[in-house]
Amino acid sequence: MELVERLLDGDRRALARAITLTENEDPRAAELARAVFPHTGRARTLGVTGPPGAGKSTLVDGLTHLYRRSGRRVGVVAVDPTSPFTGGAILGDRIRMRRGAADPDVFIRSLATRGHLGGLSWHTGSVVRLLDAAGFDTVIIETVGAGQAEVEVMRYAETTIVVMVPGLGDEVQAIKAGILEIADVIAVNKADREGADSLVRELEMMLELGGRSRGGRSGEAWTVPVVKTVATTDEGMEDLFAAAERHREHLASTGELEAWRTRELAAEVTGLIRDLVGQKAQAWAETAGAWEETLAQVAARRMDPRTAADTLVAEFLACARSGSAEAAGGGPAGEISGGSGR
Amino acid sequence: MELVERLLDGDRRALARAITLTENEDPRAAELARAVFPHTGRARTLGVTGPPGAGKSTLVDGLTHLYRRSGRRVGVVAVDPTSPFTGGAILGDRIRMRRGAADPDVFIRSLATRGHLGGLSWHTGSVVRLLDAAGFDTVIIETVGAGQAEVEVMRYAETTIVVMVPGLGDEVQAIKAGILEIADVIAVNKADREGADSLVRELEMMLELGGRSRGGRSGEAWTVPVVKTVATTDEGMEDLFAAAERHREHLASTGELEAWRTRELAAEVTGLIRDLVGQKAQAWAETAGAWEETLAQVAARRMDPRTAADTLVAEFLACARSGSAEAAGGGPAGEISGGSGR
Repeated sequence: MELVERLLDGDRRALARAITLTENEDPRAAELARAVFPHTGRARTLGVTGPPGAGKSTLVDGLTHLYRRSGRRVGVVAVDPTSPFTGGAILGDRIRMRRGAADPDVFIRSLATRGHLGGLSWHTGSVVRLLDAAGFDTVIIETVGAGQAEVEVMRYAETTIVVMVPGLGDEVQAIKAGILEIADVIAVNKADREGADSLVRELEMMLELGGRSRGGRSGEAWTVPVVKTVATTDEGMEDLFAAAERHREHLASTGELEAWRTRELAAEVTGLIRDLVGQKAQAWAETAGAWEETLAQVAARRMDPRTAADTLVAEFLACARSGSAEAAGGGPAGEISGGSGR
Repeated sequence: MELVERLLDGDRRALARAITLTENEDPRAAELARAVFPHTGRARTLGVTGPPGAGKSTLVDGLTHLYRRSGRRVGVVAVDPTSPFTGGAILGDRIRMRRGAADPDVFIRSLATRGHLGGLSWHTGSVVRLLDAAGFDTVIIETVGAGQAEVEVMRYAETTIVVMVPGLGDEVQAIKAGILEIADVIAVNKADREGADSLVRELEMMLELGGRSRGGRSGEAWTVPVVKTVATTDEGMEDLFAAAERHREHLASTGELEAWRTRELAAEVTGLIRDLVGQKAQAWAETAGAWEETLAQVAARRMDPRTAADTLVAEFLACARSGSAEAAGGGPAGEISGGSGR
């Protein structure tokens, strides 16, 4: 695949093309992922998440600038919240206005979900690896941290920065409590606004209560720092950058980085299995002989949706399930497919 | 099941218990869903969604009050954005402070996701039906419309109200474009704030451009109204209520309501099939003989996650797939399980 060669050489157009193929779930994307995979695992990955209006894009621009200054090539994956509906056209437009947009050592791309929920996560992981393989040694994943699917993409980040902002009201409080659990570093952005100091105190208290001032996903010895920033004027950005890099060093020195990588790859395989099997089951159900009749029963409220689904799933899995029972009983893996009688 | 009898009699404690069983995915929940299903399909369902800080809870309180005044019994399902992490404790606390909380004909419940993404949607549908079966003839589903999984629960609403608010910045613009596509009615809340009128104009323009001023999911003849509200003072709430009821009448009179019900039940069955099969496949993979070895290959970057997943899925489905091919070829449904050779 000539595209792979060019991508590995750092050709931007090849990279853009590869990302498009991945996003469109083109059949060639799987082949591409396979070919680049051995050339990945080198990039330092960061995630930036937080509620809408927290100023994440500006903050990511600032971080990009600082990583560039230390000689790194920076890839940015902006996961687009408009995706389920508009295909991401709007954030896509905004990307052209970004600070690093003209720098050949910066590659910014927005990523839209097309349809199914699992797609977002699988695409993000693949795109991070394409950037990695193309020689972008620092990859920043940016997402709106208000939805579960959107927060899940943070799994691809070694270091997750959660961005908070003063004065967003009650509901954001609730979201805050949620995303704190994935934070390795917290940025209180727009820190020139009223309420910034009390927000910092509140966050530190929440971290303490949640046992997250020490510990959490980064292991026992990591204290989650809360850094004040004003991304629009670069205020506090050097501190944020330093805190993120300290977290990376902490992971590397404790051996947690390797453990995290293995764990996350396993989780990715598991997630892909769920998605792939789910897709196949859906396609099967909709062409199965029992489909129309079952739906008619449901529409008439004679059978509830769960029972309908259970029945169709049981049919779909009749054979695979017996194979699984054997595997759980300790039979060799070969028997699972061999045992299907085909 | 005595619980079912009590629930159908409108017993609040039985209802609360039933919801808890559903939320915890207790094995009895499936039986419960089956028993109540024939008694559902009567409630008028509304969805209220919008970005964090739009004032959705206050607006839902206001709507609850207006539905109560017209003699309806109101159930509220607040889908909790903190759910993936905190189990929803925070919005749960806020529910006790709500306006209708002491009214025996109002039932408010927050709903958390526990773990997997599909859960949110399946729980919401089930809880709406439990409320319906218990005689709450109006059910309002409230959710933060920033995430795909969260917006998806709007599928259970006959009428979806999208709440917007002036001055939330750029990113909210993007989200706005997304959730507009699911709006049947738009509320511009906090309309006493600066920028409300220009937001109304902008929304009307976006609706026009998107072909949503007429048409969209409600069929050709529906014009999505944009209503200004100040939920904290009940200003504009009567108009919003009237607009929502007009939409319901429109659906009923055009026959779209029945078509929507059938379509949504089919989508629910499909979604459940995906989730259930996905769960089973994951459980199988993690106990399969090939699991550890495959993961070791992935960790060593000798096999990419997608190839690993494809391989394991192919093993899992070896038999079911051949069954599916037969079904697609027109064989009777009975042959699918019969063809498994077990």
